[in-house]
Amino acid sequence: MEYKSVTLKDINCIKDIINDSERVFCGEYINEDYSHDELGGAKKMPDVVVKVLSTEEVSRIMKYAYENNIPVTPRGSGTGLVGAAVPIHGGIVIDLTNMNQILELDEENLTLTLEPGVLLMEISKYVEEHDLFYPPDPGEKTATIGGNINTNAGGMRAVKYGVTRDYVRGMEVVLPNGEVVEFGGKVVKNSSGYSLKDLIVGSEGTLGIITKAILKLLPLPKKAISLLVPFNDLGQAIDTVPKIIKSKAIPTAIEFMEREAITSAEEFLGKKFPDNSSNAYLLLTFDGNSLEEVEAAYEKVADICLEEGAIDVFISNTEERQESIWTARGAFLEAIKASTTEMDEVDVVVPRNKVAEFVKFTKDVEKKHKIRIRSFGHAGDGNLHVYILRDDLDKYQWEKKLNEAMEDLYDKARQLMGQVSGEHGIGYAKKLYLNEALSASNLEIMRGVKKAFDPKNILNPDKII
Amino acid sequence: MEYKSVTLKDINCIKDIINDSERVFCGEYINEDYSHDELGGAKKMPDVVVKVLSTEEVSRIMKYAYENNIPVTPRGSGTGLVGAAVPIHGGIVIDLTNMNQILELDEENLTLTLEPGVLLMEISKYVEEHDLFYPPDPGEKTATIGGNINTNAGGMRAVKYGVTRDYVRGMEVVLPNGEVVEFGGKVVKNSSGYSLKDLIVGSEGTLGIITKAILKLLPLPKKAISLLVPFNDLGQAIDTVPKIIKSKAIPTAIEFMEREAITSAEEFLGKKFPDNSSNAYLLLTFDGNSLEEVEAAYEKVADICLEEGAIDVFISNTEERQESIWTARGAFLEAIKASTTEMDEVDVVVPRNKVAEFVKFTKDVEKKHKIRIRSFGHAGDGNLHVYILRDDLDKYQWEKKLNEAMEDLYDKARQLMGQVSGEHGIGYAKKLYLNEALSASNLEIMRGVKKAFDPKNILNPDKII
Repeated sequence: MEYKSVTLKDINCIKDIINDSERVFCGEYINEDYSHDELGGAKKMPDVVVKVLSTEEVSRIMKYAYENNIPVTPRGSGTGLVGAAVPIHGGIVIDLTNMNQILELDEENLTLTLEPGVLLMEISKYVEEHDLFYPPDPGEKTATIGGNINTNAGGMRAVKYGVTRDYVRGMEVVLPNGEVVEFGGKVVKNSSGYSLKDLIVGSEGTLGIITKAILKLLPLPKKAISLLVPFNDLGQAIDTVPKIIKSKAIPTAIEFMEREAITSAEEFLGKKFPDNSSNAYLLLTFDGNSLEEVEAAYEKVADICLEEGAIDVFISNTEERQESIWTARGAFLEAIKASTTEMDEVDVVVPRNKVAEFVKFTKDVEKKHKIRIRSFGHAGDGNLHVYILRDDLDKYQWEKKLNEAMEDLYDKARQLMGQVSGEHGIGYAKKLYLNEALSASNLEIMRGVKKAFDPKNILNPDKII
Repeated sequence: MEYKSVTLKDINCIKDIINDSERVFCGEYINEDYSHDELGGAKKMPDVVVKVLSTEEVSRIMKYAYENNIPVTPRGSGTGLVGAAVPIHGGIVIDLTNMNQILELDEENLTLTLEPGVLLMEISKYVEEHDLFYPPDPGEKTATIGGNINTNAGGMRAVKYGVTRDYVRGMEVVLPNGEVVEFGGKVVKNSSGYSLKDLIVGSEGTLGIITKAILKLLPLPKKAISLLVPFNDLGQAIDTVPKIIKSKAIPTAIEFMEREAITSAEEFLGKKFPDNSSNAYLLLTFDGNSLEEVEAAYEKVADICLEEGAIDVFISNTEERQESIWTARGAFLEAIKASTTEMDEVDVVVPRNKVAEFVKFTKDVEKKHKIRIRSFGHAGDGNLHVYILRDDLDKYQWEKKLNEAMEDLYDKARQLMGQVSGEHGIGYAKKLYLNEALSASNLEIMRGVKKAFDPKNILNPDKII
């Protein structure tokens, strides 16, 4: 790939394009944060950062970049974990966080139209005030909706409600050549040619830049109850999950966690978790429109847990108690990160009856490579978040052990008919593993798809494939 | 497009490939049905028909066709309405109806793995015996699941449960060059590169041939109740729908129908509908796990209907009464077809608060062009099925009026921010209208996508784009 180097002339042209030099940053004026994401495995400073305010600005910048062969990387809050928002080839970073307006709540069509920079926590607050519900609920609430769509984030409630893809009805997209197109719309059904909207979902900013999204909403469930279920042993806890699914109960969420994750979160937040006396826990939520409905659903599940060896079942039916549990759950990633010097992650997804086998395998890997591994995750949908921790390893040892452990984990996921990433994406960091997981024809088609959108390969190059 | 003509040598090679000459048909031995689909607007006989039994056979035939530049059209039950299964350029038709095995019910992962030729009615029967539920419910129960995935069929229950896309977890696909690939899997979440699975869904057999699918199932709701709500006037009936949505009720289905459709269905089936004394009806279903839950949901909606001018609300809470209503609803298409000499259809989808305006417009078109139009459809999800009837018009008059009426209807759908097709697809018959509806860049990307899968353009050529 041969790109044009960004010159002072380019920077001046970009300032002219957006007609506001205070939103264009270059050289030493670029904040170092733009060189990495949350995990920081991949690092590269952009040549110029533009904080855009409108679709038209995005379109004009893309047109300029396309004509001049300059690579462009779109960026939201930078909460990603696989380097997808890192400008590996330098060039322009388009920062979309200031395109953060909620544009329309359409209560007759149950849709919310918004700009890509709106944060997840802002969406839930806004729609819940209108007694409505946007189900996707990833742990990282400061992520932008643009980023969530680009990774097809799933979050906690995927067991019952599905993932981000299921809630994107339509979008406005700026193509690599600067043209503005619309995919989908407010419509509920669509069978009008290839679903380009579904290609953009999960494409990690490599096919187009989302400048507007139309989300599907649901009525807000009136009641929710969480169960915290302690077990003596993690295997026993996770093995209970397929039995819950098989029982035809429909929990909203089923998370698993170990004592270590809980105590890390307690230290990190400076708050006590309701219980930390057991080795392993399942955390379940049930929601519905009446207490009777929710109770009928969870009672059966509580019985199954006890039959499978649960020590107890703690019911959290007040908002405060639920909040304290879920806040701790939401802090796991940050807490683990704070407990070590550096870390990397594996976000595999396996069929949900294989979660126990995979988690058990992480313990074997931990022993085999003598490296600390922590995991927690979405037991109900098979998506695991496994963190490999550097602690006090030297650089050589860390890289060696990390690579070996990663290879083992991704191999195992493949054996269990799993996929490389459940919701964090491939970005820059996981390309090798995607390459190993997919067939040559599969990758070849993906390259063809990329070419159909971006023939000059200037939009977020060197990501995914 | 220059394709090789099929010769006797090719036919013999194909017979060798599948090693069973009784499943290869050519010349006068080809049933005339293979030249058209349910509506019969497009017609062309294939040169050879192969009734395949395995993925390997499909793969070998595709490989032969690819090497020899022979067009191939995959076909299920042939219940399509837009000519997608018609071999416009002749060549080979691969008939997948005998690949009709249900391969695995996985109750721990709530998935059903099956071959593409399994019929919709077989799926519902099979899973319901296991107390499970496959929500997509198009009127045409003799369609194959392969066809349903290829059109992203929606059906009646899309209001609450979404469309076929939402229930396809993974698939095995034979590519145009004969390679066998897998997209997705049993996993609930996936963010591992571009979602090629979602490209195949709705691609009308133009990108690959689905030879296996993994469907997502839900627990079977324990209770369902239907409401049949008569109104004096269709506009009044449909205008009630956005108010129902806004009330935060979640019906499973909301259909609208006029007296004419009901009386046609009564004649066609030789059975009485519970009521035909009113001009227009809404038909709603509610489901849930307890009678209380379902009652709480429908009572509010019944009140809204009465406030909006409904004459009455008939509640069908026995299986027999519900069956009689929904059987009639399922027969509308056949009944309308039987009432005329020839017909064509418009399957637009509009935002659901625009349905009333669109239906009112069909009455204007009926008057303007002096041609009989009948419509019914999914008021709850904005997907309309509008039928333009030839009756005793001569060929010239029919074609002229049909084209003019179609142009008017698709124009209107565009004005209302709708899409060309909600669930029947584009196929051969609606290419012109898709072309008018999408931007040049949008179409150009779709062509690029097609090329990424099928560089020689031999799989179902001349469809969609």
